[in-house]
Amino acid sequence: MGNADYVYPSTNVERAPRVAIPPPQSSVKSLKYNLKETFFPDDPLRQFKNQTTSRRFVLGLKYFFPIFDWAPSYTLGFLKSDFIAGITIASLAIPQGISYAKLANLPPILGLYSSFIPPLVYAMMGSSRDLAVGTVAVASLLTASMLGNVVNANENPKLYLHLAFTATFVAGVFQASLGLLRLGFIVDFLSHATIIGFMAGAATVVIMQQLKGILGLNHFTHSTDLVSVMRSVFTQIHQWRWESAVLGFGFLFFLITTRDFSKRKPKYFWVSAMAPLTSVILGSLLVYLTHAEKHGVQVIGNLKKGINPLSFTDLVFVSPYLTTAIKTGIITGVIALAEGIAVGRSFAMFKNYHIDGNKEMIAFGSMNIVGSCTSCYLTTGPFSRSAVNYNAGCKTAVSNIVMALAVMVTLLFLTPLFHYTPLVVLSSIIISAMLGLLDYEAAIHLWTVDKFDFIVCISAYAGVVFASVEIGLVIAVAISLLRLLLFVARPKTFILGNIPNSMIYRNVEQYLNTSSVPGVLILEIDAPIYFANSGYLRERIARWVDNEEDKLKSSGETSLQYVILNMGAVGNIDTSGISMLEEVKKVMDRRGLKLVLANPGAEVMKKLNKSKFIEKIGQEWIHLTVGEAVEACDFMLHTCGPNPLKEESEAYNKV
Amino acid sequence: MGNADYVYPSTNVERAPRVAIPPPQSSVKSLKYNLKETFFPDDPLRQFKNQTTSRRFVLGLKYFFPIFDWAPSYTLGFLKSDFIAGITIASLAIPQGISYAKLANLPPILGLYSSFIPPLVYAMMGSSRDLAVGTVAVASLLTASMLGNVVNANENPKLYLHLAFTATFVAGVFQASLGLLRLGFIVDFLSHATIIGFMAGAATVVIMQQLKGILGLNHFTHSTDLVSVMRSVFTQIHQWRWESAVLGFGFLFFLITTRDFSKRKPKYFWVSAMAPLTSVILGSLLVYLTHAEKHGVQVIGNLKKGINPLSFTDLVFVSPYLTTAIKTGIITGVIALAEGIAVGRSFAMFKNYHIDGNKEMIAFGSMNIVGSCTSCYLTTGPFSRSAVNYNAGCKTAVSNIVMALAVMVTLLFLTPLFHYTPLVVLSSIIISAMLGLLDYEAAIHLWTVDKFDFIVCISAYAGVVFASVEIGLVIAVAISLLRLLLFVARPKTFILGNIPNSMIYRNVEQYLNTSSVPGVLILEIDAPIYFANSGYLRERIARWVDNEEDKLKSSGETSLQYVILNMGAVGNIDTSGISMLEEVKKVMDRRGLKLVLANPGAEVMKKLNKSKFIEKIGQEWIHLTVGEAVEACDFMLHTCGPNPLKEESEAYNKV
Repeated sequence: MGNADYVYPSTNVERAPRVAIPPPQSSVKSLKYNLKETFFPDDPLRQFKNQTTSRRFVLGLKYFFPIFDWAPSYTLGFLKSDFIAGITIASLAIPQGISYAKLANLPPILGLYSSFIPPLVYAMMGSSRDLAVGTVAVASLLTASMLGNVVNANENPKLYLHLAFTATFVAGVFQASLGLLRLGFIVDFLSHATIIGFMAGAATVVIMQQLKGILGLNHFTHSTDLVSVMRSVFTQIHQWRWESAVLGFGFLFFLITTRDFSKRKPKYFWVSAMAPLTSVILGSLLVYLTHAEKHGVQVIGNLKKGINPLSFTDLVFVSPYLTTAIKTGIITGVIALAEGIAVGRSFAMFKNYHIDGNKEMIAFGSMNIVGSCTSCYLTTGPFSRSAVNYNAGCKTAVSNIVMALAVMVTLLFLTPLFHYTPLVVLSSIIISAMLGLLDYEAAIHLWTVDKFDFIVCISAYAGVVFASVEIGLVIAVAISLLRLLLFVARPKTFILGNIPNSMIYRNVEQYLNTSSVPGVLILEIDAPIYFANSGYLRERIARWVDNEEDKLKSSGETSLQYVILNMGAVGNIDTSGISMLEEVKKVMDRRGLKLVLANPGAEVMKKLNKSKFIEKIGQEWIHLTVGEAVEACDFMLHTCGPNPLKEESEAYNKV
Repeated sequence: MGNADYVYPSTNVERAPRVAIPPPQSSVKSLKYNLKETFFPDDPLRQFKNQTTSRRFVLGLKYFFPIFDWAPSYTLGFLKSDFIAGITIASLAIPQGISYAKLANLPPILGLYSSFIPPLVYAMMGSSRDLAVGTVAVASLLTASMLGNVVNANENPKLYLHLAFTATFVAGVFQASLGLLRLGFIVDFLSHATIIGFMAGAATVVIMQQLKGILGLNHFTHSTDLVSVMRSVFTQIHQWRWESAVLGFGFLFFLITTRDFSKRKPKYFWVSAMAPLTSVILGSLLVYLTHAEKHGVQVIGNLKKGINPLSFTDLVFVSPYLTTAIKTGIITGVIALAEGIAVGRSFAMFKNYHIDGNKEMIAFGSMNIVGSCTSCYLTTGPFSRSAVNYNAGCKTAVSNIVMALAVMVTLLFLTPLFHYTPLVVLSSIIISAMLGLLDYEAAIHLWTVDKFDFIVCISAYAGVVFASVEIGLVIAVAISLLRLLLFVARPKTFILGNIPNSMIYRNVEQYLNTSSVPGVLILEIDAPIYFANSGYLRERIARWVDNEEDKLKSSGETSLQYVILNMGAVGNIDTSGISMLEEVKKVMDRRGLKLVLANPGAEVMKKLNKSKFIEKIGQEWIHLTVGEAVEACDFMLHTCGPNPLKEESEAYNKV
């Protein structure tokens, strides 16, 4: 640059701190740190530090079985609250369990079995105090549609049942493994927007399936997409049963009204919680008294008395069914996990306690493994049931135990009472539960805040409704991932300007009162510089420079001399990125411009140093802040005149 | 910094500029901007603005056929340089063309055909002045291995040949479409590290394949992996031909020596450029004089006289072969593009002119479409040939035309001369070219600068050598993408400290002389806040706060009151991220801590505003810089005493 030792303008700038290269760290140590952050972000072993072996054992036991943690301090007051909550959720669990089992094409009794053993397991292993365990509509529907592809539930009910147990077992193993392998973050890839769209789509599909029950149809399509279902419904107009429809819409009206009432007056939460059981009792009485089962109203029929039979000998591990069971298990397992963990986390936030995602996965997994061996199918923490539990004032997981005991009593003594329960009531219960999942307000919120999230949400919805549940999910996840890739592949770059009366430089499009510095172009790059964007950034930087030169030329201002890259937001750089910087530097040199870096972070400095780029650009051209970089450029411009490189290059270009 | 403008005395705090919410922009406008940045980052239509229609036509013609741009100013001096360069690359092209065609299991004459028509097309459409067109080893090998899976080249040579043309056609269409659809950035996803590993792996595989020629073996495996090849070589020890091996190693030694010589003395570039042709002539003479072809040295045999026959009637568009042709075409097309564009770009950088990636793709595509109809197989811009062209002093694409004419003369009159050319010489030529691709120095550089890139490189290498070329490529791309996802899924967060005598706050691990501010924890998040990391960030922020509180408690210092999040490096946020911030705010409130944001960017401010988060946190708790945020916290601490929220929450926690 022609000046000896880079003299700074005001004497105090010389004291300005240099951009530091972080102290060297062994690769092993940094690898260890990165692995820890990836797999142990919550640092679960912290509590085990500096403890005796026996204490560690106790802590470990408490880690896997939180019941040992809270049971000793359990009080009679808690029991009273938990008892009320437990009875309330049991009254919801019985009809819902039966309904969802029908949705999964499984014997209705499985719905009761699944509300008995799994809640007991969760009560010991789960860390949520508000979660109520049970089956869910979406996973039930998924089970029916995925297993239904290989085995017809009506023609071969035994094989179908065994496959359902196997899928549950697989789901449990998968969930527990995710937790044990610390891969809980996979659930994070189902974004908020994906889940809203997916849930609404699944709810729509489930509601459409209920048309079978409401209209009293005997034959119905096995597909779940809108077109097939509508064709199935409207080709059978002459089969529609008005008795069934009247009953169905009547109960639906009752359920929706009670829910709205409870929503408006949260004190009367029990009105809506009891409504399903009331509907079942009323419906059964009505059928029993009018003998409607002989006039086209279908009923549940006989339910076997007695608690869960063992089923681990029923697990099927032979191909070709094994692949289907594995696929079903993994997909339903992930969906169920996502719902259960989201629900647990929401209520934990309300009450200000902490839920460990990986630990919850182990609890869910164990609950499903045990469940699959005791005639249960996939369970998780459904939102509706957990919300009722929370509103009913539950204090600990003991409410799950109370619910399980109530279900046990039902299984042992009360099953005959459900003989006359009309299927149409179950359909109404499902529909009223599903209506709450059609969260159009959330979709509108997505539209206002983030258009891209809205697209993800709508794609998930449309995929589920018009194609299939799996396709909807895959599309939504793919679009979400594409967004992450696009963020890196097409990073934002913008011009910085000076905020008046300060040394602060900010985006000129955000801060409209900024002023530019003559002869200096300040660019900010807003993403890590990786192979996926290094080509783009090279083009984009060149274009910014071209535009700026054109602008200056047309207005006759000082020509461009310095280009400052603010690297504050560049979190990392790879070797392709470094090559890109080297190329940009060469191009700038040829055009007679000086490249200056401002505020590179630790990772970036480390790599620039190792690749000798710092030597190439010169340590004195890397500044701590944009302000200092501008000051240095300004000083050079005023003391040394225009950049000598520039003159040279212009002379060269004329030749 | 310490300069007066920047330091805000307490009274000034109120005057400090607020963080601006960027002016509202219509969704259509911002969508348009984003689409432009994604697909037209180089703004190719800029030159067409404000022009007459006829002028636009001329510019369009010049855009697709750059020859119209440079031909009018072509001089005799250029022709002289181009003539020398053209003859030099022709002398390299003839033996290399024949060798690579053998590698692709195609008739040797195709190598000559491919050096005649495609260079003529490129000369008209290409924008590089230094690129020399020809076939390449890796694409030839890929063709052989992928087509070889469905058709045996020895048993059904005609079908195999037609499939090769079809694959070339597909590759051409694919390349041109990428260019026309502005999808050139796909090539960017092959990172620098991937290409180094992949090329070295492919070179290793190609060298191993040459053992057939060097050892004079008649039978050889069709697999390309190390294990199969080694088994094939060592189970046939008794078939090895020493005559062939001696000849092969002799010529290899000659080629390597001349290359080293030229490398050391760039003035004598022609020594190494001529060496292949010299080897061919010497080898042929030797065989002719000694009749070695009767003693186990295999020769090329008859080559048909005459220029390229038309072949577009040979294209096969019937399944089951079509799928293979498409797959082969796409994969070889992408690989060829990546090499060609990288080569073009490197030389353009040396000579300081610009290469438009999308335009080059159209040129490569057209060249291969025309090639596939005139008995050529896949061509691109090989590095070795282009480097010779550059060293020989080429000025424009006319050197390609000269080469094409020289090849034409060979095709018309000189093919009988190659009858006695021993195959082993061709093997030596291939090996010596491949040795240059084993770029172990680049691999060491990757190791020093970026361990992750090194892993990508080694995976690509191992995948290619031990499995197959496609598998290696897929593994390397998958690992590279995983890195991008991990960057977003596990963003860096770090504590900031105050740099002495300034208002600047930086990473305490990078700047070791920073000091912390009592009662205030300053965190920086180094990535966009998206669904994939919102769960992690919630945990991580909580852990930072826990750690800080533990530390303060054990040292008995002022307890924590404020948590400042520096959002300067957060390029974007989605709705999951906003929910996360809301949760963090709630948790902080409950713990009696105040959440403060510093320097959110335009995108982030826009979304925080739309989602009403700004109202929730309070506009006065969002600051322009960390320095200002700290000052505001400090001011509150000293004038109002400890945070009242904190007292309350401590009281609450005791209950």
